[in-house]
Amino acid sequence: MVRTYVEELDSHVGHEVRLQGWLYNKRSSGRIRFLLLRDGTGIVQCVMAKGQVPEEAFAAFDRLSQESSFSVSGKVRKDDRAPGGFELDVTELELYQTAAEYPITPKEHGVEFLVDRRHLWLRSARQHSIMRVRHRIIRAIRDFFDGRGFTLIDSPILTPAACEGTTTLFETDYFDLGKAYLTQSGQLYAEAGAMAFGKVYCFGPTFRAEKSKTRRHLTEFWMVEPEVAFCDLEQDMDLAEEFLEYVVQTVLKDRAEELKTLERNMKFLQNVKKPLPRITYDEAVEILKKNGVNFEWGNDFGGTDETVISQQFDRPVMVHHYPAKIKAFYMKRDSKNPDLALAVDVLAPEGYGELIGGSQREDDHETLVKRLEEYNLPREAFEWYLDLRKYGSVPHSGFGLGLERTVAWICGLDHIRETSPFPRMIYRITP
Amino acid sequence: MVRTYVEELDSHVGHEVRLQGWLYNKRSSGRIRFLLLRDGTGIVQCVMAKGQVPEEAFAAFDRLSQESSFSVSGKVRKDDRAPGGFELDVTELELYQTAAEYPITPKEHGVEFLVDRRHLWLRSARQHSIMRVRHRIIRAIRDFFDGRGFTLIDSPILTPAACEGTTTLFETDYFDLGKAYLTQSGQLYAEAGAMAFGKVYCFGPTFRAEKSKTRRHLTEFWMVEPEVAFCDLEQDMDLAEEFLEYVVQTVLKDRAEELKTLERNMKFLQNVKKPLPRITYDEAVEILKKNGVNFEWGNDFGGTDETVISQQFDRPVMVHHYPAKIKAFYMKRDSKNPDLALAVDVLAPEGYGELIGGSQREDDHETLVKRLEEYNLPREAFEWYLDLRKYGSVPHSGFGLGLERTVAWICGLDHIRETSPFPRMIYRITP
Repeated sequence: MVRTYVEELDSHVGHEVRLQGWLYNKRSSGRIRFLLLRDGTGIVQCVMAKGQVPEEAFAAFDRLSQESSFSVSGKVRKDDRAPGGFELDVTELELYQTAAEYPITPKEHGVEFLVDRRHLWLRSARQHSIMRVRHRIIRAIRDFFDGRGFTLIDSPILTPAACEGTTTLFETDYFDLGKAYLTQSGQLYAEAGAMAFGKVYCFGPTFRAEKSKTRRHLTEFWMVEPEVAFCDLEQDMDLAEEFLEYVVQTVLKDRAEELKTLERNMKFLQNVKKPLPRITYDEAVEILKKNGVNFEWGNDFGGTDETVISQQFDRPVMVHHYPAKIKAFYMKRDSKNPDLALAVDVLAPEGYGELIGGSQREDDHETLVKRLEEYNLPREAFEWYLDLRKYGSVPHSGFGLGLERTVAWICGLDHIRETSPFPRMIYRITP
Repeated sequence: MVRTYVEELDSHVGHEVRLQGWLYNKRSSGRIRFLLLRDGTGIVQCVMAKGQVPEEAFAAFDRLSQESSFSVSGKVRKDDRAPGGFELDVTELELYQTAAEYPITPKEHGVEFLVDRRHLWLRSARQHSIMRVRHRIIRAIRDFFDGRGFTLIDSPILTPAACEGTTTLFETDYFDLGKAYLTQSGQLYAEAGAMAFGKVYCFGPTFRAEKSKTRRHLTEFWMVEPEVAFCDLEQDMDLAEEFLEYVVQTVLKDRAEELKTLERNMKFLQNVKKPLPRITYDEAVEILKKNGVNFEWGNDFGGTDETVISQQFDRPVMVHHYPAKIKAFYMKRDSKNPDLALAVDVLAPEGYGELIGGSQREDDHETLVKRLEEYNLPREAFEWYLDLRKYGSVPHSGFGLGLERTVAWICGLDHIRETSPFPRMIYRITP
């Protein structure tokens, strides 16, 4: 007999198969017993009639508590009224383990109670949908760059320099070499990669030891960072909008069922098609003023500001040409106005904040040396990075997209903790 | 005019295109100037004839030092004698930057000299080939699991417990929660994932603070770890051999050119097809004895032992049923002989050592509690892991494959440092 999975039942209609999984729910009606089996790929109703199965199998029904593990054999029947479109007419059932009383029941639980039991909470239909969307987003991200000739250059997690101050860095002893720090971004390494391979991306975990307790912050999160040689800010924005469209439209197509389970309003997602609106920082400030926000030119946008700005648009909006002094040292300045950085942030609709941050990079050696001084950064730690401006420097640009915030936005989640299999926050390091 | 890349020249034959890149090499012959341009996707010879291009462009030739950045326009000509099969008849050339004297020349350099300049060394043909093979391996790994219904469940890097002693762990302060440790393996989390999704994998960086200075050890390396519910040791070995065949054969097919550049003897790679030989630990010990190795039953194999064993076979060999006392606490014991663990290691040919380590996991709650005591592990740190044996425990198995060691093997490298874009070793944290 074929051992199969719920998601493959459609190719076994009329045949006897064996499924293995856990009890999601059960009920009985007269001589009939209904078992909802979940096997990680889906849920199917198994129907067991007294007299049609061995007595021992029928009796096992009573010992099947929620999340008990069992295997079941039976014939696959197409049934359009059934949740997944199929039912199983049981001929045999084998109990592996009667589960202890399962802590997560259909009643409401507090979030802390659930996060404490994240290893079990992952079994719920809602968390399933989120993790399947997350996986699809990751695959779409990689497909996008792999399909466009980008080379994957993984950046290191352990880095030597505390580039932008140590206050937001996790620190560890590194043998006889002193301290190492967990990376905040792979960008500088990606720049070296772009000079070697033309178009590269890195995609791995990054870390922020920020004491932010907001709904949007994890201390550990994945970030994808493309970097392209011979690419200016305009082309960087072209790439970012093409990328966002691809990822969102792919997920909409392939994970419609999961988004329905999450009761996601898909209107804003369907709109994610290029061109995305592009406005300058100045225009964004104008929008704030028109909407009665008391905002001073030169400041960075806060969460509320971003929400007000993004509410003016029906899709993500690109804000570019920020005041240089609120941006990182490596960003190239606008030749027409050196107070502005050739930077772009992409703000999500519906108050999900910054999805993407990018810029054209400073490619002149002397200017970059000056910047390091202005930002009080130790030149010796950046000598290798300065090398990239000595040996065939070229205009180049890139951006970073935070995976978990993208998952939160696409799934329409209130809090970022549900986007990660095992989220890490300032007050959460377990399980 | 179309801006394109070297790898796309075949679709532009007879047309004028624009390329952007760096000077790999140059020579002149009479009124002709030959420029080898590399753009990260390939190398192409550009031919510039005096009088056919503006004088300024022709003069720029003299200022083009190795790794200088420039753009070039011209007509694509098919030429079977040319390295990539094409040449460019130049009509225009624009110099971006004359590179400073490039430190990496065609002459021999010491390895430390090169690793110190890893950000530049990545531009060499050999490193290109390795990174392109690495990328293809990563993609093949993900394709394999994605195509078989596995859900990607990223495990956390920051973990609370020092599960197997702190001596080989990197440690960091974690806000008010004490210490956190960089993960050595995502397996325990993958097990939670398998109970939720049936088949899962994680694939991310892992860390070992071991003071190993060998050719095979990095302190930071990527590991892929599949975990499958309702899977015993036999099925685990089936999965491992199917997986290895898929990865190796895919790379052979798609990266033949790169393997040729690396002068890889492909015989052993072509052999990587199932079935892989499966021998018990006892049989492996017999092999050692027959080959005159002084080896005591019950010990773990060292590097030399692994080489002797693997030399008996023309493809990777699976060694299973190890003495339990040299294996981890979570491995299930053989019911016929509880001194043996249901473990498997896959040894690469040619002395590349252990590629894969896997096992069936202990699924009985009471037995696992006992094991934690035997291994002196703090039960409270594993309560969540024990939960998996309380709520529908099932037979389950998985394995881990180290990415960098796999890259070293497939590329035929002497030292693992070349497998990572920015390798981290006990004496190396830069650049």
